[in-house]
Amino acid sequence: MAKREQTPLQSAFYRVIFGTETTAGKWFDICLIIVILASVLIIMLDSIDAYHARYGVLFLQIEWAFTILFTIEYMVRLWCSPNPKAYARSVYGVVDLLALLPTYFSLLLPQAAPLLIIRLLRILRIFRVLRLLYLLDEANHLARALHRSARKIFVFFSMVIILATIFGCLLYVVEGPEHGFNSIPHSIYWAIVTITTVGYGDVVPMTPLGQIISACGMLIGYAVIAVPTGIVTAELTMGQQLEKERHIRQSRNCSTCATVETDPAAHYCRRCGSHLPSPGHAPEKRSS
Amino acid sequence: MAKREQTPLQSAFYRVIFGTETTAGKWFDICLIIVILASVLIIMLDSIDAYHARYGVLFLQIEWAFTILFTIEYMVRLWCSPNPKAYARSVYGVVDLLALLPTYFSLLLPQAAPLLIIRLLRILRIFRVLRLLYLLDEANHLARALHRSARKIFVFFSMVIILATIFGCLLYVVEGPEHGFNSIPHSIYWAIVTITTVGYGDVVPMTPLGQIISACGMLIGYAVIAVPTGIVTAELTMGQQLEKERHIRQSRNCSTCATVETDPAAHYCRRCGSHLPSPGHAPEKRSS
Amino acid sequence: MAKREQTPLQSAFYRVIFGTETTAGKWFDICLIIVILASVLIIMLDSIDAYHARYGVLFLQIEWAFTILFTIEYMVRLWCSPNPKAYARSVYGVVDLLALLPTYFSLLLPQAAPLLIIRLLRILRIFRVLRLLYLLDEANHLARALHRSARKIFVFFSMVIILATIFGCLLYVVEGPEHGFNSIPHSIYWAIVTITTVGYGDVVPMTPLGQIISACGMLIGYAVIAVPTGIVTAELTMGQQLEKERHIRQSRNCSTCATVETDPAAHYCRRCGSHLPSPGHAPEKRSS
Amino acid sequence: MAKREQTPLQSAFYRVIFGTETTAGKWFDICLIIVILASVLIIMLDSIDAYHARYGVLFLQIEWAFTILFTIEYMVRLWCSPNPKAYARSVYGVVDLLALLPTYFSLLLPQAAPLLIIRLLRILRIFRVLRLLYLLDEANHLARALHRSARKIFVFFSMVIILATIFGCLLYVVEGPEHGFNSIPHSIYWAIVTITTVGYGDVVPMTPLGQIISACGMLIGYAVIAVPTGIVTAELTMGQQLEKERHIRQSRNCSTCATVETDPAAHYCRRCGSHLPSPGHAPEKRSS
Repeated sequence: MAKREQTPLQSAFYRVIFGTETTAGKWFDICLIIVILASVLIIMLDSIDAYHARYGVLFLQIEWAFTILFTIEYMVRLWCSPNPKAYARSVYGVVDLLALLPTYFSLLLPQAAPLLIIRLLRILRIFRVLRLLYLLDEANHLARALHRSARKIFVFFSMVIILATIFGCLLYVVEGPEHGFNSIPHSIYWAIVTITTVGYGDVVPMTPLGQIISACGMLIGYAVIAVPTGIVTAELTMGQQLEKERHIRQSRNCSTCATVETDPAAHYCRRCGSHLPSPGHAPEKRSS
Repeated sequence: MAKREQTPLQSAFYRVIFGTETTAGKWFDICLIIVILASVLIIMLDSIDAYHARYGVLFLQIEWAFTILFTIEYMVRLWCSPNPKAYARSVYGVVDLLALLPTYFSLLLPQAAPLLIIRLLRILRIFRVLRLLYLLDEANHLARALHRSARKIFVFFSMVIILATIFGCLLYVVEGPEHGFNSIPHSIYWAIVTITTVGYGDVVPMTPLGQIISACGMLIGYAVIAVPTGIVTAELTMGQQLEKERHIRQSRNCSTCATVETDPAAHYCRRCGSHLPSPGHAPEKRSS
Repeated sequence: MAKREQTPLQSAFYRVIFGTETTAGKWFDICLIIVILASVLIIMLDSIDAYHARYGVLFLQIEWAFTILFTIEYMVRLWCSPNPKAYARSVYGVVDLLALLPTYFSLLLPQAAPLLIIRLLRILRIFRVLRLLYLLDEANHLARALHRSARKIFVFFSMVIILATIFGCLLYVVEGPEHGFNSIPHSIYWAIVTITTVGYGDVVPMTPLGQIISACGMLIGYAVIAVPTGIVTAELTMGQQLEKERHIRQSRNCSTCATVETDPAAHYCRRCGSHLPSPGHAPEKRSS
Repeated sequence: MAKREQTPLQSAFYRVIFGTETTAGKWFDICLIIVILASVLIIMLDSIDAYHARYGVLFLQIEWAFTILFTIEYMVRLWCSPNPKAYARSVYGVVDLLALLPTYFSLLLPQAAPLLIIRLLRILRIFRVLRLLYLLDEANHLARALHRSARKIFVFFSMVIILATIFGCLLYVVEGPEHGFNSIPHSIYWAIVTITTVGYGDVVPMTPLGQIISACGMLIGYAVIAVPTGIVTAELTMGQQLEKERHIRQSRNCSTCATVETDPAAHYCRRCGSHLPSPGHAPEKRSS
């Protein structure tokens, strides 16, 4: 992509707003999380009737203050980015924009009903916090493990949905509309509620046969949870072992006696006492 | 089994319909999944009273179109298979046939009540999607792990059912029919609902003693989920390690100095610099 | 313990009834499981009012037939055992006796109310099936892993009960008797229902503060399930690795060139072609 | 910190009350657990209306007896500790004091309502049992694994709360106040109840769209439990392997031929037969 030239001021802003390496950049991100969470809290409180009646006007003013603040932030981001189009088209850029628009749209469409739904789009700001979670190493570690197991988890979800379809149909036939199993989609919804062990209890099997089939479904759902758990655990364990092996692969050889040293903190050959080369210089090999 | 001679046309159809290696074969399978899911969707929508009343005739016509399509597919499968009897007797062949028959039977038995149950047999088509999941490596990996742990999972289910029987009987004695624990089978059903942590709440213990016993059952059920999870995870981890070891076992020896090389990407002996044989030619050993 | 001399007939019976190595012994155990499950099924069906009214007399006759059968079995076990006292005092011996007595007691106490409770003691027979599960290798493997993690699981249960006590007290104070939190023990019961994710819904928090605290409890309970799962999985994985290492430790050395062979199926040294000693003769080393 | 001189009597008391190495110290801790649990039991029973009405005066007397006992214990702890200020400021010292005060405050504030809440602070004594759990190796092992995964678990909780916020808002818009989704905070509470698979069933989605979205939420919540489980399991497995590696690192070298021996039970070099140094003398190396 075509990168444009940045002025020193733009570079400085870029480092603070987009970057996370400098102290100022970290503080900017922490403040941003606090402001986003505060704005989300205001939207939540405004949805409670009692608070809306009493503080509705105040909430509206705070909401406008936040919106103007986020608008300025969005514009500064566009201004200081070396590639504004790439930012505007990225997932985060789109979320940043979508979280702004509803408040402005509320000026054009002052009716009550659609307003509510549009205003709630502002809750998308919560996704912006997700971005900041990526600052943490742990989140990246987890995200990699989940990404590696994505296809296995897709297979697992297909399996659960097929199971739910079969159990839903069975109970639709056995129990029927007179016990709350009105239609196949509703019965499948019930089967998902049961297999995932949520169990609301708004619809329950009444006939002995329905209860036997449900009990089988529960037992399967109870055991099937082992599958995603096994997948993620195996990935995380594997990730730790890869980490350990990469560590071992960063081994060095004593130039005098060829002894292999895997401890990156070693300075001298443990056999002949020669000085070892520093571990950072060893080129890292990649394995499949 | 006696295989019959195939004409070139039969072979070509066979590769597309049964095979998954060619591009055409893959597209055929993807189209088939879409058509099966569409036909299942129609059955589901038809079970909703409001839609049945309004679009019932349309649904019936679509259903007949799908049935004729699947009938043609079934016949082509029989025609192009090198061993039609083996296909017709396989699980998938039987499911393919069972998913066709209900629509034809509905011509013979036009009464309302049994019709419903027979028509639902068409939902068996969802099993056909399962077959196509096997195209995915991940599904095979999971299926192998589940297959290896099948006996352990059977032991686990026996354990849970014995636990549920004991807790069901205890609560039948403690709570009795006046609190909804009508009979031992019904109490066992309640115990399964509780131990699997589904917890509908249609029947709950009322007496203090019943609540203490239930709390013990919940704690046991909550911890016991660890067992299938542990089993599947250990199998998956073991599977990954076997994979890795098979990788290592594909090691080669330098023909000059006999150094073992486990890195499949190596081209030269790391000790004497001779050219190594390519790893693909090494015959794979099998271990127990 | 003092073992008595066995006649050849006693030995033969002992091998069939107590042993599991012979074909006859295996068939005896399988028949016994079927008879125990059938007798448990009769007790269950008899507890359903409709069946008791119609088939009560038949059930009573079948029950007496089973009781006489089990009495004979118990006596034969005592007669053919080399150490009858040890059998009678073992857990299984006591369960075998306890499962017999209720039917005989019902002759002495023909009143309705206490009879019910005593008759249900017969359900203890289900424990006898547990004994037969031990025939399976998988059950032993699981039992060992659970036994190794017993102390950790005790710590986990203490943790959950302390958590439930704290959350129960908090909600008792916040919600109070007017929302169904009548007493601290009842609130702790509610907290166990919530933390184990059973969630009956018979008592639910009504106040916003109660709901916030409950949500924290649910999240903790949802994550805490990871602890027993992690414990059992780590034990099972460790068990598999110990198994694998024992396998490796059963390695042999070529007597000609000292090459180490870990494959128990190898007959010839893979380097010099000499005949290897058979793996069974290698004394197994023990590690801590 | 400034440690004061201890008299021999203080030292003796210190070893019994604070220490766990001596037999007397262990018995003191076990008795203390029993007394704490008894006092917690009395508070629980007193909260049941029927028991309070009948035994209220007795409970009050027992409560005073326990309070005086714990006051003496607290004072002896202060007296015999080599650093009383450090104890008084530690978490356990504060909990010990907080668990005493409510009973004394009840003399000053004899009104009913605030009394209840203050008296319940005594339940904090249950935290004192937690301290004693640390005596067990298993608890320390678990606590270390949980501590190592603390940041990952924080990321997981953030993920679940963001998920709950999104699903809560979606259902607030789709279902609205007429189906029980009164406000966004209440809908988020509902989403937490659903995602954690508790599923009380006091609020359930009624519209088809709401049920579809809920089903997605349940499936995600059902699979997401895999994440903390995977984290803790990977940590526990890693902990076991570190343990094993530390074991291996306690290897010794033959002083004659330098062969490495990892088996701590070996007495002679397996290559040259020289006597090996005993493993206990080898200094333990630390790895990162």
